[in-house]
Amino acid sequence: MRTGKLDIQSTTYMEMIDITTHIEKITTTSEIETGFCFLFNPHTTSGLTINEGADPDVREDIITGLKHIVPMRLHYQHVEGNSPSHIMASLMGCSLTIFIENSRPFLGQWQKIFFCEFDGPRSRQIHWRLAANI
Amino acid sequence: MRTGKLDIQSTTYMEMIDITTHIEKITTTSEIETGFCFLFNPHTTSGLTINEGADPDVREDIITGLKHIVPMRLHYQHVEGNSPSHIMASLMGCSLTIFIENSRPFLGQWQKIFFCEFDGPRSRQIHWRLAANI
Amino acid sequence: MRTGKLDIQSTTYMEMIDITTHIEKITTTSEIETGFCFLFNPHTTSGLTINEGADPDVREDIITGLKHIVPMRLHYQHVEGNSPSHIMASLMGCSLTIFIENSRPFLGQWQKIFFCEFDGPRSRQIHWRLAANI
Repeated sequence: MRTGKLDIQSTTYMEMIDITTHIEKITTTSEIETGFCFLFNPHTTSGLTINEGADPDVREDIITGLKHIVPMRLHYQHVEGNSPSHIMASLMGCSLTIFIENSRPFLGQWQKIFFCEFDGPRSRQIHWRLAANI
Repeated sequence: MRTGKLDIQSTTYMEMIDITTHIEKITTTSEIETGFCFLFNPHTTSGLTINEGADPDVREDIITGLKHIVPMRLHYQHVEGNSPSHIMASLMGCSLTIFIENSRPFLGQWQKIFFCEFDGPRSRQIHWRLAANI
Repeated sequence: MRTGKLDIQSTTYMEMIDITTHIEKITTTSEIETGFCFLFNPHTTSGLTINEGADPDVREDIITGLKHIVPMRLHYQHVEGNSPSHIMASLMGCSLTIFIENSRPFLGQWQKIFFCEFDGPRSRQIHWRLAANI
């Protein structure tokens, strides 16, 4: 199976959810030893990023920082009121390209893969696709 | 034809231009059913992003937010005076990786693909390349 | 050789280091004429971006802008004190997808590839991988 979807349930308004273990399961159960794992977030008020996973404070600080960077109140026109969430989604980005080495995500020592919820709690789904290196 | 360029004409200083229909035409007229569409923006004062396309207010609010996030006046040294546009370009990013499914961009329900003009109006060109999933 | 690492030595706290010549050497000495060069930054307080390389003031202004955008002091919890560097890392992103054309990075006229140091000076390593267009 070289393509699929990963279910994610966020539990609060804004949070970073470590999905590394799920991605590892996808790559290690595939037949691909060397290649790429592409992740795509089909939602418009959440994002994907890779950052430090060792200290949970870092992910909290990233949320704290984003809340300060993106004004919660401004002359926004979108009536749903979640324009800051849309802006954060574009700041983080909707896709990740991860190298696969020895059938595992080839990450740095402190790196983990995070789904970034900016408008939760919600049920979300990430699309993934594997490609062999050619 | 698996590689090419897409012409874009921006009409104002900063705007998000929906290019989804153009990308759909590229993928549906290719022979690729399942694969990837890579987009690359060769300019340094514009970017690419994927976000909500249903309500045009969202794209306006993203521009409004970016103008607030990136200071228009600071101790910038670049004499052309468009340093904020360069910063926004790096915040949005210069490339997108989109899955192709059934010969179409595999996007979320509300997602559209946007070219982000941060220093217009200008004539721009986006590079695209398709790859089959292997 | 289609995969490898690139050593980078930063010399100050925050700086953008032009690595375009190194990437060109990688692609031109490969056998790939048309394809993709994927770059991945395995660190959590640095990033990768593509922006203007002609005027060195632009890269200085991007650092100046980021220092203003990301608050240096806030109610951060991470005891190492480098939370702003982690936030900047996620804002810039950890990977780049570059087209290869005629065995060279297919960049715009003013574009250069930059490693963004946000917590230096440090010894860093970027992972690269080439793929033929198929």
